[in-house]
Formats: sequence, structure tokens, C-alpha cells
Amino acid sequence: MTILELQGLAARSAARKLAVTGEMLKNAALNAIADALLVRRGEWLEANAADLAAARAEGMGAALLDRLALDEKRIAAIAEGVRQVAALPDPVGQVVKTTLRPNGLKLEQRRVPLGVVGIIYEARPNVTVDAAALCLKASNACILRGGKEAFRSNKAVITILRDALESAGLPRDCVALVEDVSRESAVEMMDLTEYLDVLIPRGGAGLIRSVAAKAHVPVIRTGEGVCHVYVHGEADLDMAVRILYNAKCSRPSVCNAAECVLVDRVVAERFLPMAWEVLKTKSVVLHADPEALDILGERAVPATVQDWDSEYGDYQLAVKVVADLEEAMAFIAAHGTGHSEAIVTESYTAAQRFLDGVDAAAVYVNASTRFTDGFEFGLGAEIGISTQKLHARGPMGLEELTSTKYVIYGAGQIRE
Amino acid sequence: MTILELQGLAARSAARKLAVTGEMLKNAALNAIADALLVRRGEWLEANAADLAAARAEGMGAALLDRLALDEKRIAAIAEGVRQVAALPDPVGQVVKTTLRPNGLKLEQRRVPLGVVGIIYEARPNVTVDAAALCLKASNACILRGGKEAFRSNKAVITILRDALESAGLPRDCVALVEDVSRESAVEMMDLTEYLDVLIPRGGAGLIRSVAAKAHVPVIRTGEGVCHVYVHGEADLDMAVRILYNAKCSRPSVCNAAECVLVDRVVAERFLPMAWEVLKTKSVVLHADPEALDILGERAVPATVQDWDSEYGDYQLAVKVVADLEEAMAFIAAHGTGHSEAIVTESYTAAQRFLDGVDAAAVYVNASTRFTDGFEFGLGAEIGISTQKLHARGPMGLEELTSTKYVIYGAGQIRE
Repeated sequence: MTILELQGLAARSAARKLAVTGEMLKNAALNAIADALLVRRGEWLEANAADLAAARAEGMGAALLDRLALDEKRIAAIAEGVRQVAALPDPVGQVVKTTLRPNGLKLEQRRVPLGVVGIIYEARPNVTVDAAALCLKASNACILRGGKEAFRSNKAVITILRDALESAGLPRDCVALVEDVSRESAVEMMDLTEYLDVLIPRGGAGLIRSVAAKAHVPVIRTGEGVCHVYVHGEADLDMAVRILYNAKCSRPSVCNAAECVLVDRVVAERFLPMAWEVLKTKSVVLHADPEALDILGERAVPATVQDWDSEYGDYQLAVKVVADLEEAMAFIAAHGTGHSEAIVTESYTAAQRFLDGVDAAAVYVNASTRFTDGFEFGLGAEIGISTQKLHARGPMGLEELTSTKYVIYGAGQIRE
Repeated sequence: MTILELQGLAARSAARKLAVTGEMLKNAALNAIADALLVRRGEWLEANAADLAAARAEGMGAALLDRLALDEKRIAAIAEGVRQVAALPDPVGQVVKTTLRPNGLKLEQRRVPLGVVGIIYEARPNVTVDAAALCLKASNACILRGGKEAFRSNKAVITILRDALESAGLPRDCVALVEDVSRESAVEMMDLTEYLDVLIPRGGAGLIRSVAAKAHVPVIRTGEGVCHVYVHGEADLDMAVRILYNAKCSRPSVCNAAECVLVDRVVAERFLPMAWEVLKTKSVVLHADPEALDILGERAVPATVQDWDSEYGDYQLAVKVVADLEEAMAFIAAHGTGHSEAIVTESYTAAQRFLDGVDAAAVYVNASTRFTDGFEFGLGAEIGISTQKLHARGPMGLEELTSTKYVIYGAGQIRE
């Protein structure tokens, strides 16, 4: 057996234990983890400093270095996040549905853990703790494979997590780290069908597409976001500007940020200069189609076909003038990733048509796409934002980390 | 583009139309299909007669011939099934959850279609109609690939279905048949990620495992059933005999039939001869472990290791004596397929422990495993029985043929 298979076997065994572990013990373990993160933060910070030094030496950019970096305040926030997961309701055992059949059978559809969850992610050490805490609360064991840039940080914190689990009376193997961070280990995880019930890639679009294309373990695709704001002809244009600015500029690196604005022809000449007045405060680069370019002139650059499918993750925005709602919806169907799409309009009919007709995880009227998030949606937590249709769609909280089973109480019934 | 890709493109377009088609029109189309099946039954029967003749010439066995065969009565029942699907509530648009957020955003989680559903199945022409009707009611387009033995039957009925769809005002491409029934077309379907939202294999374990192992389109595994009946030491043995006989013999070819009985040592000497008295009426072959063999003597044959993982689909039963509940549960964890598992017991504690601890789609106390079925569970229909944990588990009805989306009503909200 490979090391990963041995980890899978151990995780499977831990998952069986977790499946029958009550909420009180799981919460005690989560609080023990939060305590240990604070008490032993020195170990984590030391390892993180080594990761940061190595990353700097290899020329990592400032934005990525910032994502990799830990400090006392960040660790305190991560520990607090674990306590918040402990405080959330336990999804396991919740009864989704009960049915009494005419033959007297009593059916109960209950939430049960998924089993063993694999997560492949990039260089953000906080994900290691967040993901482990959410999986634990939903009674899943997890096998985590972080980015190689964060390896020392991840190895340090996983030891803290496993020690805390053990001290609370749970198996250490509820949480495991893949220590081989080569490409091969990711590929091996994708084929670990015997030990992984689901694989969740978190990170850039390249990682997610590659995992989805190659994996034989069931995958939940997350966070691919080419999101649009569509300014309808009957929009309140001041509101449209505020929404577009928020959707593009409040945090351009995240998946629910807007990458493209579509503007109805009848308002384009008024709207685009208004939008530019605020977007220019962040030096947003506008990639405009010919018609928008006529209006924007030197404030924009010509769009190429690549722009319509680009997740910039940056202060860049594609701009296109459309004839009407139908053209906007067809464009979104062709170029959206099914994440978050917004229309700004005062027209009741246009709003309803957009809500019904756009196929995405979240469809908005008169609000920023930036709200697509487990916390903003009231789930209390988030393991990722699913952009697929099977199992879960949109922000995934604890319930989305569960499956169900039917429990049937009989009195000797047989089928005729 | 290949023929299949062209079909995929057409199905995608039909699915977009279906997504905004109301229930009345869908029901009208379903009733038009039911009418057309009766009016044009001659065409279908003629094609089926040709399939049957070819199958007989190739030496197909009686059981398979029976599954392939249509007659007036069967067609009437199939048409009636389509009318029953029309009468079921439309899952599309159902609101799963509503949330009012503190910032005034109104969230609605709605059921939406999956999109395009691919189904690969074997030589049962009724599946073509059943699957098409269920997909249509849930506003999904479908691409069906039946077995080559039923090809003429499927081609005839698909024409009837598509004509009826057109007459009702829906696109013909809501339903499509893969006309190339070679192995290559199945493989191509497994990789048709751009056009298929989900692939459901229905049929033998070999087909399902092969599709699950190879597909890149998301798969829902169905119908792999190595199901156990566990006779606990505190069972009502008369009830246990009735349940075992029903679970094994009422329809041995189906996935919810029992393949193995586990018996607590303390009751084995009483129970096994009692069970034999009824099982012998169907000449059930008992494959017994050494301890059961000591009791059964010439009424059984020795089990091999293969027996513990065999889905016989026939009048054969594996028999094993166990020490207690824990050994039974460990055996089920090792050899079950996560389909349906039953305990027979009068012990409250043993029953609860079994229900909590056994990881399967359906777990029974004192009832036959044969009830795992969409109709028996009150879903009104069934597209298959999922034995996986993602998306759906257990019998899948119309709701399981949908996804969800969040619809968000704002009033200009932006995220801080």
C-alpha cells in the first residue's frame, strides 16, 4: 500500500468512529483545537516564518505572500472561527423527512456524514484549520493536501490538531495531511475511490478544472466565477453604479467578484461614463466591445474574445453593450460559469425573467454578486461555493458536508 | 463534431427551453406521449418482434427475453405509468428554503432542472419511456443509450416520443436516443462533460462499476445491491423467516433482494433449519460458512470467499453465523454495497445500534429489504436507487432529478 492508501485506511476507520460520535464530544474536540492553536501558536508561527522565508527567496509576489502569512491576530481569528463552528448546530442525525406508509412502515430520512473528505488547496494555511473544523463538525474525517509553499505551516498545525483530537478522545486520523506535495500525490488522491467519498478542490480555476477533468473520486467543483452585472434599460443607474463598483472593486481576487458588465444600449451612453467616474478611483482597466469603446474612448481598451471568458481576479472589467435582456441572458449562458449573476432593473417583468432564465448558483436582482458566501447567506460557515449542479449548488455549509440515509422501522412487513 | 456532440448540443438547447416550460405544457406533452404509445403501439410491437427474433436467434435466455418483450398489456401499463408521472407534483420551482437576511436581502432556494441527463441501460425497452417521462417532468432533456438487443424497439418508441413532444409544442430534442450502440458510444458519453450534466447507469453491476470508474461526467451510481438480513439473537424467529424468505425469494433478480443472511450463534441451530423449510420451496442454494454448514449439513454447500461479495440475482443465498451484533455490523461494512440492510430483533438497543451504525442507503428493523423502491417509499416514481452518498442516496424520484439555485431579491444592497 502507498502512504496515501494507508492514510485513507486510517481515515476510513476514524470516519466510522466519528459517524457515531455525539455532538458534545465533537464540540469538546473543536474547543480543544481552538485552545491548542492559541497555546501552541509559537510552533505554527515558526513554521510559517520558514515558509515565508523560502517563498520570498523564490520571489513570491506580495499578494501571495500575504495569503501565506500568519500572525498572532490571524491565528486568534482562526481559533475563534473554530469555536464558531463548534457553536453551529450539528447537521448529523437531523431528520430531513419522515413518512408513514400505508403498510405501517415508518421511514425517516436522516442526515449522515459523507465519510472521508479530500480537499486539495493552495497556499493558505488557514484553510487547513477551517476545513478540518467543518469536516469534524459534520463527522467526516478529512485528508488535506495544501500547497507546497505552505507545507511547513500545514505540517506544524496538523500536529497541533491531531494532538488536540487525541486529548479530546477522538482518533488522530480524523484529520490527515498529505506530506508529499508533488503533482503525483494530487493525481493519486483523484483516484483514491476506495478511501475518499468526495474530493473538493479549492483554489484557482486551473486547479479546479484539472481536478474535475481527471478525478475518478466524486468531485465538487468550487469557486469558478466569471460573474456578470447586467444593467437593464430600466435600471436605477445610480444604484447600478454602486452595485457594479462593489461587485468589481470590494475584493477583486475572490470568485464572486464581477468580471463583466453588460449594459443595455438605451442607457449605455449615460451609464458607462458614470461607472467610469467611480471605477477610475481603483484604476480599473475596462476591456470594451466596439460599441462601448465608442462611448468610453480612451478610458477603455478594446476587448478581445478572451476577455469574455476571463476571471481576472484583479481590477479589470470586460464591458459589453447589448440590445436587450434576451441578448444579455444569452451572453451570460455562453460565458458565465454558473456562479453569481446580477441584473439591475426597476422592471418587475425583466427581473422575474432574469431570475427564472439565468442558470447559476445565485441570481440577483438589485444587489451585488459579492454576497454569494456561506456567512452572508446565513449558513454560518463555508467549505466552498459549488458551481456544479449535483449534490450542492452555491455556498456549502455543514449540511452540504452530509449525505442522508433512510431508516425504516418495521413490524415484520414483507413486500407482496 | 461527432453525432453525439450534435445530439448534446440539441439537447442543451431543448433543456434551456424546458427550464422555462410550465407544468401544464409538460403534463400535456406527457399525456400526448401516453396517447401516442397506445395509438402507435403497432409500430413499437413490430420493432420489438424483430428484436426478439434476433435475440432468440443469438440464443438469449428466457429471463432476458422476458425483460426484452413487449405486449399490449405491457404497453398499456407503460402508458399508464407516463400518465402517473404527469399527475405527480412538478419539482421545478419548488422553494426549498427562504431566508431574510439582516441587510434586507431576501433569499430563496429554488429547485431547478439538472439540465441534460444521460442514461445508459440494458435491454429493457420500458426504461426508455420511463426515463424520458421522469426527465421531462423534471424539465430535463435526456440522452438515452439502451442495450443493443433492444435497439429496434428503442428506435421505434423514440420516434413516437419525439413526434408526441413536437405535437405538444415542445422540442423533439428533449429526448434523444444514441443510435450507435457500440462500446465506443458509451465511452464517448462518459466524457461528454460539455453536454451532459449527469450520467446515470442502470443495469448490472459490471456496467455500473465500469461507468463509475471511467466517466468524467458526474455519475450517479445505482442499484448495486449485496443486501443482508441479520437475524439477531433476540429476533422473533418466525418473523425472521418470513422476512428472509421475502427478501430473498419475492424477486431475486432485483437489487434490493437479499444475498446473504447473518445469524447470531445463539439462535443459529434453531433458525437455520426453520429458514430452510421455506427456502427449499424455491430450491434456494445455500452457500454456508463452516459453522452454518455444520448445522445445515447436506442442505447447503460450502461458501467460498467470493460468496460474501456476490450479487447472485438468483435463488442463491450466502449464510454466515456471527457471534453478535458487532460482528454482523463489521461484516456488513466489509461486504455490503451500501444499498439495503435489515436487522430482525426484538431488542430496542440492538435495533437502534444497527440503525445508527450501518452505513447504507436504507437500514431496516423488522422489515424486508425489498421495500427500497421509489414507489414503496412514497416518491411516486423512480429513476433508480442511488448507492452513492453525493447528491442523492436511496430511491431517486423527481426531486432527485433536480438541482437548486439561490434567487436573491435586493434593493440596492452592496457588501461592506
